[in-house]
Amino acid sequence: MRKEKDYLGEVDIEDNALYGISSKRATQIFPSTDEKFDEKFIWAYFIIKKSAAILNKELSYLDEEIGNAIIQACDEWEELKKHIIVDPLSGGAGTSVNMNINEVIANRASQILGKDFGYVKPIEHVNLHQSTNDTFTTAGKIATIVRLRELIGEVITLQDVIQQKEKEFYRIRKVGRTQLMDGPPIMLGQEFGAFADALARDRWRLNKVEERIRNVNIGGTAIGTGIGAPKEYVLKITNTLREISKVKIAKADNLIDCTQNMDVFSEVHGLLKSLAVNIYKISNDIRLLSSGPNSGIGELIIPPVQIGSSIMPGKINPVVSEYAMQLSLVVFAHDSLINHACAQGNLELNQFAPIIVHYTLKSLKFLKNACLALVSYIDKIKANEEKCKENLEKSISNLTPLINLFGYDEVSNTIKEANYNLFKAIEILSQKNNLPKEELLKKITPQNLTKLGF
Amino acid sequence: MRKEKDYLGEVDIEDNALYGISSKRATQIFPSTDEKFDEKFIWAYFIIKKSAAILNKELSYLDEEIGNAIIQACDEWEELKKHIIVDPLSGGAGTSVNMNINEVIANRASQILGKDFGYVKPIEHVNLHQSTNDTFTTAGKIATIVRLRELIGEVITLQDVIQQKEKEFYRIRKVGRTQLMDGPPIMLGQEFGAFADALARDRWRLNKVEERIRNVNIGGTAIGTGIGAPKEYVLKITNTLREISKVKIAKADNLIDCTQNMDVFSEVHGLLKSLAVNIYKISNDIRLLSSGPNSGIGELIIPPVQIGSSIMPGKINPVVSEYAMQLSLVVFAHDSLINHACAQGNLELNQFAPIIVHYTLKSLKFLKNACLALVSYIDKIKANEEKCKENLEKSISNLTPLINLFGYDEVSNTIKEANYNLFKAIEILSQKNNLPKEELLKKITPQNLTKLGF
Amino acid sequence: MRKEKDYLGEVDIEDNALYGISSKRATQIFPSTDEKFDEKFIWAYFIIKKSAAILNKELSYLDEEIGNAIIQACDEWEELKKHIIVDPLSGGAGTSVNMNINEVIANRASQILGKDFGYVKPIEHVNLHQSTNDTFTTAGKIATIVRLRELIGEVITLQDVIQQKEKEFYRIRKVGRTQLMDGPPIMLGQEFGAFADALARDRWRLNKVEERIRNVNIGGTAIGTGIGAPKEYVLKITNTLREISKVKIAKADNLIDCTQNMDVFSEVHGLLKSLAVNIYKISNDIRLLSSGPNSGIGELIIPPVQIGSSIMPGKINPVVSEYAMQLSLVVFAHDSLINHACAQGNLELNQFAPIIVHYTLKSLKFLKNACLALVSYIDKIKANEEKCKENLEKSISNLTPLINLFGYDEVSNTIKEANYNLFKAIEILSQKNNLPKEELLKKITPQNLTKLGF
Amino acid sequence: MRKEKDYLGEVDIEDNALYGISSKRATQIFPSTDEKFDEKFIWAYFIIKKSAAILNKELSYLDEEIGNAIIQACDEWEELKKHIIVDPLSGGAGTSVNMNINEVIANRASQILGKDFGYVKPIEHVNLHQSTNDTFTTAGKIATIVRLRELIGEVITLQDVIQQKEKEFYRIRKVGRTQLMDGPPIMLGQEFGAFADALARDRWRLNKVEERIRNVNIGGTAIGTGIGAPKEYVLKITNTLREISKVKIAKADNLIDCTQNMDVFSEVHGLLKSLAVNIYKISNDIRLLSSGPNSGIGELIIPPVQIGSSIMPGKINPVVSEYAMQLSLVVFAHDSLINHACAQGNLELNQFAPIIVHYTLKSLKFLKNACLALVSYIDKIKANEEKCKENLEKSISNLTPLINLFGYDEVSNTIKEANYNLFKAIEILSQKNNLPKEELLKKITPQNLTKLGF
Repeated sequence: MRKEKDYLGEVDIEDNALYGISSKRATQIFPSTDEKFDEKFIWAYFIIKKSAAILNKELSYLDEEIGNAIIQACDEWEELKKHIIVDPLSGGAGTSVNMNINEVIANRASQILGKDFGYVKPIEHVNLHQSTNDTFTTAGKIATIVRLRELIGEVITLQDVIQQKEKEFYRIRKVGRTQLMDGPPIMLGQEFGAFADALARDRWRLNKVEERIRNVNIGGTAIGTGIGAPKEYVLKITNTLREISKVKIAKADNLIDCTQNMDVFSEVHGLLKSLAVNIYKISNDIRLLSSGPNSGIGELIIPPVQIGSSIMPGKINPVVSEYAMQLSLVVFAHDSLINHACAQGNLELNQFAPIIVHYTLKSLKFLKNACLALVSYIDKIKANEEKCKENLEKSISNLTPLINLFGYDEVSNTIKEANYNLFKAIEILSQKNNLPKEELLKKITPQNLTKLGF
Repeated sequence: MRKEKDYLGEVDIEDNALYGISSKRATQIFPSTDEKFDEKFIWAYFIIKKSAAILNKELSYLDEEIGNAIIQACDEWEELKKHIIVDPLSGGAGTSVNMNINEVIANRASQILGKDFGYVKPIEHVNLHQSTNDTFTTAGKIATIVRLRELIGEVITLQDVIQQKEKEFYRIRKVGRTQLMDGPPIMLGQEFGAFADALARDRWRLNKVEERIRNVNIGGTAIGTGIGAPKEYVLKITNTLREISKVKIAKADNLIDCTQNMDVFSEVHGLLKSLAVNIYKISNDIRLLSSGPNSGIGELIIPPVQIGSSIMPGKINPVVSEYAMQLSLVVFAHDSLINHACAQGNLELNQFAPIIVHYTLKSLKFLKNACLALVSYIDKIKANEEKCKENLEKSISNLTPLINLFGYDEVSNTIKEANYNLFKAIEILSQKNNLPKEELLKKITPQNLTKLGF
Repeated sequence: MRKEKDYLGEVDIEDNALYGISSKRATQIFPSTDEKFDEKFIWAYFIIKKSAAILNKELSYLDEEIGNAIIQACDEWEELKKHIIVDPLSGGAGTSVNMNINEVIANRASQILGKDFGYVKPIEHVNLHQSTNDTFTTAGKIATIVRLRELIGEVITLQDVIQQKEKEFYRIRKVGRTQLMDGPPIMLGQEFGAFADALARDRWRLNKVEERIRNVNIGGTAIGTGIGAPKEYVLKITNTLREISKVKIAKADNLIDCTQNMDVFSEVHGLLKSLAVNIYKISNDIRLLSSGPNSGIGELIIPPVQIGSSIMPGKINPVVSEYAMQLSLVVFAHDSLINHACAQGNLELNQFAPIIVHYTLKSLKFLKNACLALVSYIDKIKANEEKCKENLEKSISNLTPLINLFGYDEVSNTIKEANYNLFKAIEILSQKNNLPKEELLKKITPQNLTKLGF
Repeated sequence: MRKEKDYLGEVDIEDNALYGISSKRATQIFPSTDEKFDEKFIWAYFIIKKSAAILNKELSYLDEEIGNAIIQACDEWEELKKHIIVDPLSGGAGTSVNMNINEVIANRASQILGKDFGYVKPIEHVNLHQSTNDTFTTAGKIATIVRLRELIGEVITLQDVIQQKEKEFYRIRKVGRTQLMDGPPIMLGQEFGAFADALARDRWRLNKVEERIRNVNIGGTAIGTGIGAPKEYVLKITNTLREISKVKIAKADNLIDCTQNMDVFSEVHGLLKSLAVNIYKISNDIRLLSSGPNSGIGELIIPPVQIGSSIMPGKINPVVSEYAMQLSLVVFAHDSLINHACAQGNLELNQFAPIIVHYTLKSLKFLKNACLALVSYIDKIKANEEKCKENLEKSISNLTPLINLFGYDEVSNTIKEANYNLFKAIEILSQKNNLPKEELLKKITPQNLTKLGF
């Protein structure tokens, strides 16, 4: 154990630890929630530190040797990330993770230079011209953009797989259902086409997100006025960061606004949640269409990816639909959380930035997971053409053409009298009206019905 | 138009209006949301004013003549309520509605006494020894208890109707479904029994609610310290109010706590929402079981309460399930709203009391509506025994007894090979194992399967 | 009372009522929730009926005389709307309101033609080539666009008022606060500038909404396949409707998708809620800055729009902030509701369309109300320059320049020792370091601090 | 790598892994969300497996040797838990984790017996007479009860700490605030007393929770009918489990109901969230009262647990309030999630059991963390008596006693004229009314005001 000291007192720290007193204090103040930082958020934070070091060196605010050591330490982020020990849900608007990263980089830089810990300083060197309040949300936005692009990739793949099914199922005629009730006929391919078109809207939305979230407040320091940072640094840091991170961020027009207002996160999550809406609907429709398979609808055959019952042989459950639906429900919960957290920021800063950023990144991960799981699942879905035909043939909607013969009310009444059994209804109509059953049956083929639409 | 004046200036008021300047101001500050006060909340507020007048008269703080006129005015609440013009969602923690009621009573009391408006005064007489901060939440709690009792009555009726169905459907054997997939057999009556037992828990919960919400802060005035009110009034007002209202309220042990903390509303709504959970589940199960009726599950026949399609004859939709499910979803939204509003109160008062009380009462109404609609709906639900039998007989769970003959894996594999068609699966097993089909069919009757349970 | 009959039986209807049996049935099935339809939704529905009549007449599907009577009836919508008696939260995916409107128009058209009720028919004439499933969401989208434009107007006015304050308060230096704690100085005008810039983003978002929601499924009838409607009607109806309504709708590329998927409503509400985020933040900041006014921050003086206490003279509460914050919280609740309702649609239709449309329109109204109320409120807000100055001068952030003299730790320690009292801290530092107090005081003017920023 | 096979095919598994093919498949189907199982949930699951083994052995359904090996393996749960590799949010209603545990126990039991993997079988031996559907929710309920007790302990400690402050601050007179505005005086101790009394309600609630959640469906197997399990096992398993687990569970009266309905989780979480309401309110009040400390309210001095700013010396932020408030907001999000997930179960099972159980346990952890952090924080909070006195003395509520002299309107008007500055208001009143200032000042001491209350 080594001891570190600040003006609040002394703290014991593990010997090999690269983090320091602020990190250690944070773990003692904020009990672990078991939540983990998104790796890309940590990466983005190191990239910011690296960019600041590069620029500060360039502008001669940072000694060449120390600057280089900091830059090298930042490049080792994958190795260093295990020293990030603070909880993502810490209070303090992100101070703890900023300090954790500052301390790790400073100590690693000292090591690189062959010096004792303390030679390179977390605040004076690593955090130079920065504040938690500009680095934290900037890191959150960069990580969001990176994760977003990954998600877009998965949504595209999912849409592709669904469009393949649209083609594959194009000629399979089946019953449509409104309010879960027998309705007019539709093609199975058309159902998958509607799924695909919903996802097309999500692609558009996700592409919009990037432009909505790219304005960052780096350089604004504590409250967006840039207090403590020289003008030239403030003007250039966004450019440096854009080059180093390869993420197309832009300097916000109003750094004060950008520091205190988090509404873009609520907007971004408001677009993400629409993807959750569609994932839920698609997954649930697959679940309904594959239900039974014998005592339910059974029109789709879902892939047997795992055994469904230790008791019943051959039981296959719609487990990936359930997984994706669960993740969507969690995304809705995150959405509500983010709305409230964004709204409740006070004055020059949103003190709830940690949960806003953390849960945005979680939603991105959950949605990506849902897409990933659905891609290989839907790919293996098969149609049960026989069941589609059977269900269509017994749908009461087939009786629609008989309205011309007997009127809406009499047909309706007969269906009711027949307890909604199609064939009994025809028998009754045939008897009452003294018309041969065969003639009626000829009129009610689904083909007849389909002609009504186009 | 008459003119009224306070220290902020002069306002025009309609000649016949019983409300006064504060009410009128409120309608100008807070544009109407189209929300309406629950009538019982208005009633409770008048009852509080009446109780205060009785006690103030008794304790000689209020002139006999004026006191009596106030009491008489309060008794005319049903007639007077049309003069309550302020919006339920006004800011000001309820001040506007308190003043609206004070003004209406004062003016009506002046009328009763044959005097000009202004003779009986809203604040000095009607509001004597009260504050918005103690009357508003007390009125909210009294109204909640009254509405709660009505709701409990409806839940009991709903449970009764369901239990009748439990008996009616007791002997109807059918397939059980887990994850929407063919599962072990169950009795239709058992399904309704599970609905009824869920509602039994709600009855218990709702009965608990009354005891949780009965502690009131009346007498505490502005912040629970009773500032402005004489000790004897503070000590006696809860008793007077209990007698007059016939609602079993109790004086809170700590009036300060009771004035600022609204957590009991979040608790009460937390219990209400569990009823919404069960109403949603029951309504949805009915929707699923009646789906099709031909291309779906079709085991229940829902009553044709309205025509379902202008195109398709005989289409009957699960409209009451949908109504009840929608109301449940709204109750969940209210629940989230109330949590946040209760949490965000500051220091000596919760400034969001108006939405907390309003949405609690709305949830009580919505839940009562849902129960009412379901009662007459479920009463008319019939079983489709034929469909129950048919679905049960084709359920793949029937193959379970064949495990003893062929092993879990072979049976499972065959089911998969047969595309989950029961009869094909038996054919394959019969051929492969050189066993007559009839023998296998004998083993797989649902009756055999049921014996496994009890 | 007159009697009307359908195949389900006979129902009594009030003599003068223009609605008919389906409307009446709906009020009996679905107990009233006290919710009201948005008037623009009703208007949009009449406009759809009118457009269909015009096109059907043009295409000779509708008799000239009947067609004209229907068109005339539609033009009388403001007079007729009192006959819309069904509840907005009815089950049936909107069937009840569609039928209510069909019946009212048909009966009014019969009246116009001097015929008995029943001459013009709700389904065969008024609903010709339509379904609830295409008219309901189309009406919802048209009403949304109209209300949206009204909202945008209010947001613009609000932004203007705030920008005037930005200018008015430009030169008022004050303390900034992060995490509610004394922070670096800022201008009061900059704070209002940040509010205005947040609203600028909302303007952009709301302008986006219109293009996102303009694709409609009118002509798609029951499930988007156009069943029951002739091809030429399907192709032309959107154009006719656009002309008649003057709302820039467009025919959806995929009518099947557009009939079943409601994700655009979740997207639209996802953008609306960001406005609620900003309204909440701005209102809350005003509340905080005006708090006290003496025992709190007191930097803003809010207009005394109503009397705040019956006990304490001169008490002015931030009632419009509270109103706007409450409405924002309700909008967040609607947002969560709409997410879930959009996600839970099944197969060819979303059975929860009624709550989706109703609560979207409610949010638009609530947000407009909040803006309206804030506009005249903020307009009258004044700065308390004295308090701004006083607060700034005692902020501990002023000690920042002393770091150069004594180091971060010693200054920090002294502040702690002085119980965060600025002047005591200076005294201690002066004594300990044997430096005249006056010299230190000179260094810590806020002006000095401001120079650090720019 | 070893290979395992089921009827769906072959899978590669790491050599030393104790899990088997079902576990491995699950990790491939459901991408990791980074969520972790609550350790007590895993423990509860092992305890269930142990109890089943004990009873099955006792009833001679399980071979003595194998039974003992299973029991021993269960006792090694802490060592074995690292082999639980499936994600908590898997689809399949919990099948994956049940199978993971079955496989790990079976393989470890085989090891114990010196046999090859496969000797003791996951389904036939470890899962004997069980189903995911009864073990999963039973494990969830046991873990909930255990975590609940821990939470109650922390709430008690928190209440104690607050009550100590109540005593410590008993005699500190200060201004009360309603709607953040100067109000009647109160004691600082009374404010902490209100916090403590709110927590007292939570203790009552949490104690209620245990009795509400103790009914379990173990023995009900797949759908609550006990299919596949012998009667004697079904009757005895709850007792065995109660003894082994030392948790006071009880056999549900209706196992079918208890298997499909999860409303008790929504009820339980509905009670938990009220604790979040109070934690949020208390934390926020502390944040407000300690705000500034100089430019804000500053009546409380929060402990400097970490350095608040890299720029400003002595800046101490309310970081533990922020941590606790964030966790409360997350609990509200979980609450909404659990409502929806509980409502959306279908027929004989709730397919969303995994998220219901997981997020209930997360909320219990988050609430415990919040309490823990607050305990040591509040313990170190000090009053700033000077600031309390200063704020009280300048509160405009002090002018209340002057109403008797000048009337409500004149005092109010003067306050407004004086821009809410107390001393200016007195000066104006003194001049206008020709009364010496000193006389007025004597009348307005807070002591005078306090006398009005009691």
